[in-house]
Amino acid sequence: MNDNSASNSANLGSNTLAQVAFVVRDIEEASRRWADVLGQPVPKVIVTEPGNAVAMTAYGVPSDAQCKLAFFSLGQVQLELIEPIGDMSAWAKVLNEKGEGFHHLAFWVEGMQKSVDFLKERGVPMVQRGDMGPGQYAYFDATDRLGTHIELLEKAREARAEP
Amino acid sequence: MNDNSASNSANLGSNTLAQVAFVVRDIEEASRRWADVLGQPVPKVIVTEPGNAVAMTAYGVPSDAQCKLAFFSLGQVQLELIEPIGDMSAWAKVLNEKGEGFHHLAFWVEGMQKSVDFLKERGVPMVQRGDMGPGQYAYFDATDRLGTHIELLEKAREARAEP
Repeated sequence: MNDNSASNSANLGSNTLAQVAFVVRDIEEASRRWADVLGQPVPKVIVTEPGNAVAMTAYGVPSDAQCKLAFFSLGQVQLELIEPIGDMSAWAKVLNEKGEGFHHLAFWVEGMQKSVDFLKERGVPMVQRGDMGPGQYAYFDATDRLGTHIELLEKAREARAEP
Repeated sequence: MNDNSASNSANLGSNTLAQVAFVVRDIEEASRRWADVLGQPVPKVIVTEPGNAVAMTAYGVPSDAQCKLAFFSLGQVQLELIEPIGDMSAWAKVLNEKGEGFHHLAFWVEGMQKSVDFLKERGVPMVQRGDMGPGQYAYFDATDRLGTHIELLEKAREARAEP
């Protein structure tokens, strides 16, 4: 699609970058290193709920994985650090296969399933999802096509996204 | 540094993310893939001037390397695709060692040397620089500390940045 249609059915659902995320082995240590370089306060670390409590699936099956998260503000964009807990997640997959480093670009959308279907049509499969309060998140493995995962975030889900 | 001082001497010089950049082997092909997924027009490809024409240095020595560039708008942030031309650059180093994928986060600063010195004090060395019209750019290899390169951009240089 080469137009700038605002319709979800014809594009990703948003072209406003919301997050850039890195996977790390030790989030407290990584947070201190980033805080030092950015000249920002060391952020609080959040531990996500167990996957089973948020209807998490990874690679087609339920997962009880979790992660630790820390965020820095870079203007419009959040820099997100992620330390995986457990191996059944797109976070652990990248960390285990490639080591510490870049993980994904994230975008807020509405009506996530339309974006899921749009990406699927373009050969970018959904590989993980979970509830996020009344909303949800989902990861898409675009490593082969774009050299990155993509995350979609939704504040109020109508239905749980399906691959 | 854990404060939010606006002084360049106490931080990176900016906390507003300007660019996220990926290195690619074939920029025309990669641009089409990104345009397809983002639902944006395929951008024009720019070829940078030869390194010798922009006082380029890489890893401490003059370099005549170039690159092809393409940009997508993601709101505040530009998504930048980079295809290296020649091997003596931070672009080619990442592509040759890690393959296609994420390369750097970029920030606009003023008085770049203060930011160079700030990063150097934190163990993040400047590995490449070049003129950019009346301004300049410089890359810093923070792979060990942060899992990414950092780029600083300056619109009007007072002096060429020195490692």
